[in-house]
Amino acid sequence: MNREKSDRSTAPAVVLLSGGLDSSTVLAIAKSEGFTPHAMTFRYGQRHQLEIEAAKRIAARMEVKQHIIADIDLRTFGGSALTAEIAVPKDREAKQMQEIPITYVPARNTIFLSFALAWAEVLESSDIFIGVNAVDYSGYPDCRPEYIEAYERMANLATKAAVEGRQKIKIHTPLINLTKAEIIARGMELGVDYSLTISCYDPSAAGEACGRCDACLLRRSGFQQNQLKDPVPYQPM
Amino acid sequence: MNREKSDRSTAPAVVLLSGGLDSSTVLAIAKSEGFTPHAMTFRYGQRHQLEIEAAKRIAARMEVKQHIIADIDLRTFGGSALTAEIAVPKDREAKQMQEIPITYVPARNTIFLSFALAWAEVLESSDIFIGVNAVDYSGYPDCRPEYIEAYERMANLATKAAVEGRQKIKIHTPLINLTKAEIIARGMELGVDYSLTISCYDPSAAGEACGRCDACLLRRSGFQQNQLKDPVPYQPM
Repeated sequence: MNREKSDRSTAPAVVLLSGGLDSSTVLAIAKSEGFTPHAMTFRYGQRHQLEIEAAKRIAARMEVKQHIIADIDLRTFGGSALTAEIAVPKDREAKQMQEIPITYVPARNTIFLSFALAWAEVLESSDIFIGVNAVDYSGYPDCRPEYIEAYERMANLATKAAVEGRQKIKIHTPLINLTKAEIIARGMELGVDYSLTISCYDPSAAGEACGRCDACLLRRSGFQQNQLKDPVPYQPM
Repeated sequence: MNREKSDRSTAPAVVLLSGGLDSSTVLAIAKSEGFTPHAMTFRYGQRHQLEIEAAKRIAARMEVKQHIIADIDLRTFGGSALTAEIAVPKDREAKQMQEIPITYVPARNTIFLSFALAWAEVLESSDIFIGVNAVDYSGYPDCRPEYIEAYERMANLATKAAVEGRQKIKIHTPLINLTKAEIIARGMELGVDYSLTISCYDPSAAGEACGRCDACLLRRSGFQQNQLKDPVPYQPM
């Protein structure tokens, strides 16, 4: 494994890391492809800071080169259950989840990728990794391949490094066509410790997952399909 | 004039407002086209806070509907004379200014437009105004028409409102092909009070412009070509 890695690229890559299952898997994939990961997490007015703590644990465990936590306050604009005081929907069926959910944050990935692009230019990196997924989260417009392609095209016209030919931005989306079960299977192969991650939209103060929001339902189902038990603690049902 | 305005759109528009000459002129243009302006200013680790104060004065004088000052710390990534402790270049010739300047901030317009896009979605607005200019600032990749077009295309794939057909994002760049002299002439027609604006990259603590940085040289030349005196105070030369 180490021998394989040393034969491959050790180019720097910016990896967007939320502290959840998907982005942790993406970080492991970036490492497995030989990139030197620089992780970036956003403190964006989330209702709980547990995600930030999870991101720190994962970044430390996976030995990223650098971990930046950027402060941006998306609450300025209002909207979304993830950033305002709106109830998180519970116990929804898979079909309902295909609609654009109330937990949608306006232009979130566009903002996140823009910060990643700035950092990539400073690092002289051409590679940005993001854990978007068009299967389980088809309701989010900024998780679709056509969006990512348009972003990449724009990014290559945006920076001094790209215009001067020193950078050719590639937005890596290794999870885009995987189901949650497939993502977990891939992460297990790569040794991701999912006990460090948090996916729940509405955890208890002690960090126990609710088990009933969209994120919990998808996550639990993904572990079940792999005949595995999710290692994170859940609130009693 | 009032009659003409009432016949036209009063749709909300997001206007990026830096406190400088260009963005103040853009705000006046958005108003003259009948939009209801919502101004957005960024506190991004600039070396001086005078720009923020200028933006507040202009927003108040031009009676914007709302003025948001968003905090983002671009210093996190390093680089650029505008955000770090690097000397601002002085007394450069026009030809030197055509190169990408040291005052370049990585992915700055990409980040600014992304916040504007988020706010536009919340406001149910399709219109974003930005004072980019491809004539005097040809060195900045994110001021070119091809960049703006690519951004607009991406934006229309990014938001729930666009995907659901309630929004068709248009990035308005009314200054993109104007010289500084033409921008000033247009602003004077529209009654912009340029004494409220600040363009200098390196003003004194009292707010007097240096007269020698790229921004000052372009601005003074623009007023001279209009046979006008720049109303802002300059440091004694």
